[in-house]
Amino acid sequence: MQIQNYIREVPDFPIPGIPFKDITPLLANAGAFQAAIDALIERCAPLQADVIVSAEARGFLLAAPIAYRMAKPLIPIRKQGKLPHNTHTVSYQLEYGEDTLEIHQDAITPGQSALIVDDLLATGGTIAASAQLVQKCGGTIAGYAFLIELAYLNGRTKLQSENIVSLITY
Amino acid sequence: MQIQNYIREVPDFPIPGIPFKDITPLLANAGAFQAAIDALIERCAPLQADVIVSAEARGFLLAAPIAYRMAKPLIPIRKQGKLPHNTHTVSYQLEYGEDTLEIHQDAITPGQSALIVDDLLATGGTIAASAQLVQKCGGTIAGYAFLIELAYLNGRTKLQSENIVSLITY
Repeated sequence: MQIQNYIREVPDFPIPGIPFKDITPLLANAGAFQAAIDALIERCAPLQADVIVSAEARGFLLAAPIAYRMAKPLIPIRKQGKLPHNTHTVSYQLEYGEDTLEIHQDAITPGQSALIVDDLLATGGTIAASAQLVQKCGGTIAGYAFLIELAYLNGRTKLQSENIVSLITY
Repeated sequence: MQIQNYIREVPDFPIPGIPFKDITPLLANAGAFQAAIDALIERCAPLQADVIVSAEARGFLLAAPIAYRMAKPLIPIRKQGKLPHNTHTVSYQLEYGEDTLEIHQDAITPGQSALIVDDLLATGGTIAASAQLVQKCGGTIAGYAFLIELAYLNGRTKLQSENIVSLITY
């Protein structure tokens, strides 16, 4: 199963000059989706994370079956104003403007280790903010899991653990 | 496993007078999350849907493990401007203003039947819009699956199939 065959490159999205990596053909092929999830689980199992953490929205598509299959707690990170209970908040810079992410304060017990899951590691801004939120809860970072890594954007330099799993690298 | 014990009611969210049903304690309990996913799968299997369809973001948390476990294509519906390829679009009324959802035009083959999954059936606006998007692709509605149904909001009256599975009803 060559899962990279199910990633579609869409030119000039969201802006001219950006070749967007579209994961929807992979999601739409049950065998490819299962193979991707199972490969991430196999490679992340040795990290022995206590919880699976993921920021909305595309990250949920991978983190939820990983948490389900590994029988680990699933902790959502959401944009500001979406989580109903008491939250920790981190704001971070985007190319234009900034974004704010939140996690429930009671989502992680101090000392628990988190596997942070997303579909794509690009510049690493969202992922670094997610790690900060885990740490605000008193958690530690067991590692990171990505379907795709855009290595030429050097997102790895923003991450605080060397345990970085990515299935497809461009 | 009484999964309703893992739904937390948060008063006055997002606005005064609304008792919000918070599913994050369920997500954070691996056994409860697996029990909920497995119960939805067991009750939806007889519908023999060809594809699993879900709108961002919370719907993804349920639809992705359902698609993974049932080995069926997973088709995401997203807010306007998020899907990179050619899309069908539906706008629908919210209490204040309107919202627009999109699906990739090639996401569903004409004639395929869809199981539409979300965490919550409230007034049914998002779910009815999701069904319209399936139909714009030439697909049919096999049924609907919800973790929670707020029956007092009569969302069922907006749905076009009587095959409605909900695990917890308020």
